[in-house]
Amino acid sequence: MTSERDHMKAGENPVVLSIDAMGGDQGPAAVVAGIALSAEKNPEIRFILHGPKDQLEPLVAKKSDLTGRCEIRDASGVVSMDDKPSQVMRSGKDTSMWSTLEAVRQGEATVAVSCGNTGALMALSMIRLRKLPGVNRPAIAILWPSRNPQGFNVMLDVGADIRADAEDLLQYALMGVSYARNGLNLKNPRVGLLNVGTEEHKGRAELKEAHELIGDIAEDGHFEFVGFVEGGDIPGNKCDVIVTDGFTGNIALKTGEGTASLISDFLKQAFAYSFLSRVASLLALTSLKRLKKRIDPRRVNGGVFLGLNGTVVKSHGAADATGVSAAVKLAFQLAQTGFTDRIAARVASAAERAQDVSENETNGPAI
Amino acid sequence: MTSERDHMKAGENPVVLSIDAMGGDQGPAAVVAGIALSAEKNPEIRFILHGPKDQLEPLVAKKSDLTGRCEIRDASGVVSMDDKPSQVMRSGKDTSMWSTLEAVRQGEATVAVSCGNTGALMALSMIRLRKLPGVNRPAIAILWPSRNPQGFNVMLDVGADIRADAEDLLQYALMGVSYARNGLNLKNPRVGLLNVGTEEHKGRAELKEAHELIGDIAEDGHFEFVGFVEGGDIPGNKCDVIVTDGFTGNIALKTGEGTASLISDFLKQAFAYSFLSRVASLLALTSLKRLKKRIDPRRVNGGVFLGLNGTVVKSHGAADATGVSAAVKLAFQLAQTGFTDRIAARVASAAERAQDVSENETNGPAI
Repeated sequence: MTSERDHMKAGENPVVLSIDAMGGDQGPAAVVAGIALSAEKNPEIRFILHGPKDQLEPLVAKKSDLTGRCEIRDASGVVSMDDKPSQVMRSGKDTSMWSTLEAVRQGEATVAVSCGNTGALMALSMIRLRKLPGVNRPAIAILWPSRNPQGFNVMLDVGADIRADAEDLLQYALMGVSYARNGLNLKNPRVGLLNVGTEEHKGRAELKEAHELIGDIAEDGHFEFVGFVEGGDIPGNKCDVIVTDGFTGNIALKTGEGTASLISDFLKQAFAYSFLSRVASLLALTSLKRLKKRIDPRRVNGGVFLGLNGTVVKSHGAADATGVSAAVKLAFQLAQTGFTDRIAARVASAAERAQDVSENETNGPAI
Repeated sequence: MTSERDHMKAGENPVVLSIDAMGGDQGPAAVVAGIALSAEKNPEIRFILHGPKDQLEPLVAKKSDLTGRCEIRDASGVVSMDDKPSQVMRSGKDTSMWSTLEAVRQGEATVAVSCGNTGALMALSMIRLRKLPGVNRPAIAILWPSRNPQGFNVMLDVGADIRADAEDLLQYALMGVSYARNGLNLKNPRVGLLNVGTEEHKGRAELKEAHELIGDIAEDGHFEFVGFVEGGDIPGNKCDVIVTDGFTGNIALKTGEGTASLISDFLKQAFAYSFLSRVASLLALTSLKRLKKRIDPRRVNGGVFLGLNGTVVKSHGAADATGVSAAVKLAFQLAQTGFTDRIAARVASAAERAQDVSENETNGPAI
């Protein structure tokens, strides 16, 4: 199976992505327009598109870039934003979301993309794809605009689970490193552990323990551990990967988004204040667009579920064609680098190493 | 003692503030310039200024607004930003910070202001001023630029303690309501409890318990409880007071500050991009200044320590004269409204009510 996947990745062979056409706020037309944009840019991409065939066929037919590159898989049910995850797990077999994950489960694609209900997508991914061996809690990783040369930092977990013990935080660090390497092309990512201060004695007990675990494995794992970092370092240049529990990460993510949106509105109001400021805003338009491009969430679109047998890219619910295309681009890159297999190897080797250590401890030092 | 304080507050009687001149990054000159600015605006303010007399006297003498309104209290020691709180608690008796709190402890002033080391200031405040009866953990509250008509929201705790149980969160809610009422002039503040979702079943156990406790007391406490809120609501208009534990609050605060500073730098870069954009930025200057005024941290300067016998305003370490003056303005307002006594009364009456309930529960329903 792995060799088959490796073969699929190689040379001019196509990269197949499994796409949920339904469940986003903008409907299937935005999803089809988004994948057509990506298809135009990357001749290697192929799609399996899931949703009601009668709705999808005419949309796909209109896009010449998709001709012969997009298989439609009929699924009549749609998971709505209000559906409870438990409900979808019980009776969501006919939905496009279920079908999208099924194609990954069957090895037809290695990466899935959906704009749908996050809770339901995570719950379904957990039961259908199952956790990677050695992973206790999967995580959601996002890209955050930053001062680093690559333009973004990785932060995880931003909400897959509200709890994380020291072992979980170590796994998040390993998975985050893989993601930074494959998603941002960083050879030796720098990892920081989110805390309320940078001194080693600060913070909760599990953070001190995780500090040790991550530090111990950094050299073997080919990454740099910068120790504790603070909230201000999330968009900073002190590290590339920020590790935290899903409760804290979710609050930080939404606080950052809310602050950015507040400033953007204040900026608009400042420019709308008087006649002169409206003239100024016309002249400043290009500059403001340049700014927007750097922090536009549509261009950083896609939380990634890590720690499963398969990678799932969760696009923003409100994503338009540009947003969907950004999520597809990320999915394509991760599929192309064989990310799912790499992350599995990384977690497994860390687990083995930990086992070696504990066996050695039990049997006394190795000679 | 209370009647004496009430007398001090009334009419044209002066309001005395205790000011730490030392420990800020900009030195005592910035502090003296800041209090002089405030003295000019508010004829009722008087100061007790703490620090090395030989340094402070010439600085104060230069400011005519301070003539006859600023008593200098000699303290030769200075708490530096690197000093460990434990060290300051043991051997900091000669410092300006200690002396500043002592004036509040002795009832000479009701509110203290310091730009110094936060950890040391909190530790000293705890042992010298002591907690209010009924308060388990004091909290640090800050003002956050928001979409609300008052321009700011209150968030607490942002880092006094990394833990908080349901009872602590209830007390934060009560203290936050008092602060919003006295610091932001809101009659019926709306309180939100920070969580990763707004559904009642979401989040950690202590949050669900706190949700009940706060909801039960809202009507008697004359505030509105809006339930769970998310990170995006911190700068929003859904509530005026955001309640959270000090770990989460500190991360949120620093994430928000970091994001705002990133956007501000990106904005500068966007405007410096080309000749035309530099011309545009000249024209846009007034608009940008208008924006800066709304989110300038120097104008929202001052975390407030709540839950102690006396109120302590922690100004930003890097505060210049404008920043110090903003902190003094807040301290003045809180001193004038008798905030310390009010918050004590509020917490005490909530504790009594809770006791009534539990007595009734023990003895069966009252007839």
